[in-house]
Amino acid sequence: MTASLPVSFALPAGAAPVACVDIGGTKVAVAIVDARGVQGRLVEPTIKQGASDALARQVLRMIGASCQAAHIAPGAISAVGVASCGPFVLNQGRVELSTPNICGGLAGSARGLPNDWRTAVLEAPLHDAFPRVRVENDGVAALQAERRWGALQGIDHCAYVTWSTGIGAGLCVDGRVLRGKNGNAGHAGHMFVVDNADALCGCGNVGDLEALVAGNALPRRFVEYADAAAILIAAKAGDAKAKAIIDGVCRIMGRALYNLIATLDLERISLGGSVFWHHRDYLLPRLQAEIRGKLPALTDGCTLVEAGLGERVGDGAALALVA
Amino acid sequence: MTASLPVSFALPAGAAPVACVDIGGTKVAVAIVDARGVQGRLVEPTIKQGASDALARQVLRMIGASCQAAHIAPGAISAVGVASCGPFVLNQGRVELSTPNICGGLAGSARGLPNDWRTAVLEAPLHDAFPRVRVENDGVAALQAERRWGALQGIDHCAYVTWSTGIGAGLCVDGRVLRGKNGNAGHAGHMFVVDNADALCGCGNVGDLEALVAGNALPRRFVEYADAAAILIAAKAGDAKAKAIIDGVCRIMGRALYNLIATLDLERISLGGSVFWHHRDYLLPRLQAEIRGKLPALTDGCTLVEAGLGERVGDGAALALVA
Repeated sequence: MTASLPVSFALPAGAAPVACVDIGGTKVAVAIVDARGVQGRLVEPTIKQGASDALARQVLRMIGASCQAAHIAPGAISAVGVASCGPFVLNQGRVELSTPNICGGLAGSARGLPNDWRTAVLEAPLHDAFPRVRVENDGVAALQAERRWGALQGIDHCAYVTWSTGIGAGLCVDGRVLRGKNGNAGHAGHMFVVDNADALCGCGNVGDLEALVAGNALPRRFVEYADAAAILIAAKAGDAKAKAIIDGVCRIMGRALYNLIATLDLERISLGGSVFWHHRDYLLPRLQAEIRGKLPALTDGCTLVEAGLGERVGDGAALALVA
Repeated sequence: MTASLPVSFALPAGAAPVACVDIGGTKVAVAIVDARGVQGRLVEPTIKQGASDALARQVLRMIGASCQAAHIAPGAISAVGVASCGPFVLNQGRVELSTPNICGGLAGSARGLPNDWRTAVLEAPLHDAFPRVRVENDGVAALQAERRWGALQGIDHCAYVTWSTGIGAGLCVDGRVLRGKNGNAGHAGHMFVVDNADALCGCGNVGDLEALVAGNALPRRFVEYADAAAILIAAKAGDAKAKAIIDGVCRIMGRALYNLIATLDLERISLGGSVFWHHRDYLLPRLQAEIRGKLPALTDGCTLVEAGLGERVGDGAALALVA
């Protein structure tokens, strides 16, 4: 939590409360936001057993419990914002998740998931229960939070990139947030930017960006380190081997950021996520160096910055969809 | 010219004539389009000498000559559409070219250009002479032609990719054509998608997509062949070495197309350009094979097709901006 952030996320006095839902491959977080700010925040492990609507039922139950904790009647909720991991598929216009970490019935999904879901139902049961529901990819939602309260305010051509357990992005060009045919625009973590023969991604790709530099990929690729933080701490302490690893990782991540700039002619990219955020003083200049000098007509007018909302991007993501 | 194409590019009866301008690094083409169709088409080498507005003056002179050839008074021209190579920079809101093949004053520009221009003035003098002027990157303009008359009609999430002397693209997401901060969205030819230590691009990048697979790059990389067509003809004739080269090239180009799909969640990519078009029967299935199986939630709903306008994409590009 960055103490200097002025954002309380409280709604204007008199505004009807909204429910904010964050769905990740590991955890689901739900909170109610009203004029008092964030209320009744609950976190549970993501349910991966039962019928294919089990996750949607979990979200509905958690919204009810969060309302109770916030002393609000569920009928008073005016809207539900859901920021979820993807990819999404649409079934009769309603979002379902096609996420390898959640759906055991997908080719390439994580081994040993206790279900055979091809998709996890999400949006349709929420629409049955609440008057207004908006579901977006978590990268798209985080981008909207950064545009509303963070480092991308007033910037028409921009991206938010999260460098965390996985790699995700939200994109905005010409002042409009990009969604794509199923709301999956921003899955830039699954770009290929270098050659690599053996790094397997959760999505089934071999050698994509996420397989090479994501928080869960680094200890798989460099097994002598317990986790990504251990490599970064060693690099910052001057260890030559760790420094070389991080330089290589920043070259790959820098290429991906540059690819976004070249493809979309962006003005600013804001960066967050646990891997980046805790080591941003070390990582940001290295990423900036990877952009510099490449195709100057496109990169000269583009800056890389740390997320204005810091670690609170996630808190604002679902809220930005409905507030 | 594909004989079966029904598009005449004629304006409706009674519509005021428009001027269509195509600016490439080698040639400038100008034509007048009215209810009769395309009239007074002229082609000249791109002027690269004199003051930095010499190219704009050439365009104005050619529009005048084209009007004369078409028996139209220049004052009758209602609009000028310009599809130009990029990248662009904006000077007081007007497009200037920052193109290494044209501007001798740019770092990384082609050696021996007979000028020291940092930019080539383009849009401002045209606005002084005509009531309506629209300048777009040639990839963006070609995309609009494909959306209007070609293979991307009715497709809201799409790209047109030209595989020619260089590699360029135009992008559309959520039904809106992407422009970016200086109108350079779609410079995806300058993405990095594999490792390569020594292929120098005209833009100064080392090892970007265009440096590896563009029509002008292939004979530089594989010097035993006179040009890209020679490699493709040999591959189609069964020559093992040429086949291996083309397989490698399609792997790189396929990665770039996949990167666009993953980043933008596209429904369809239409392909054109001289390298692709003349060998599309051989190249298209190989590119499709590179997409297949990668991140199915994003690629399953996306098709690669040949340009509906075929070799006439260029003819329609500038017209799509003003007709």
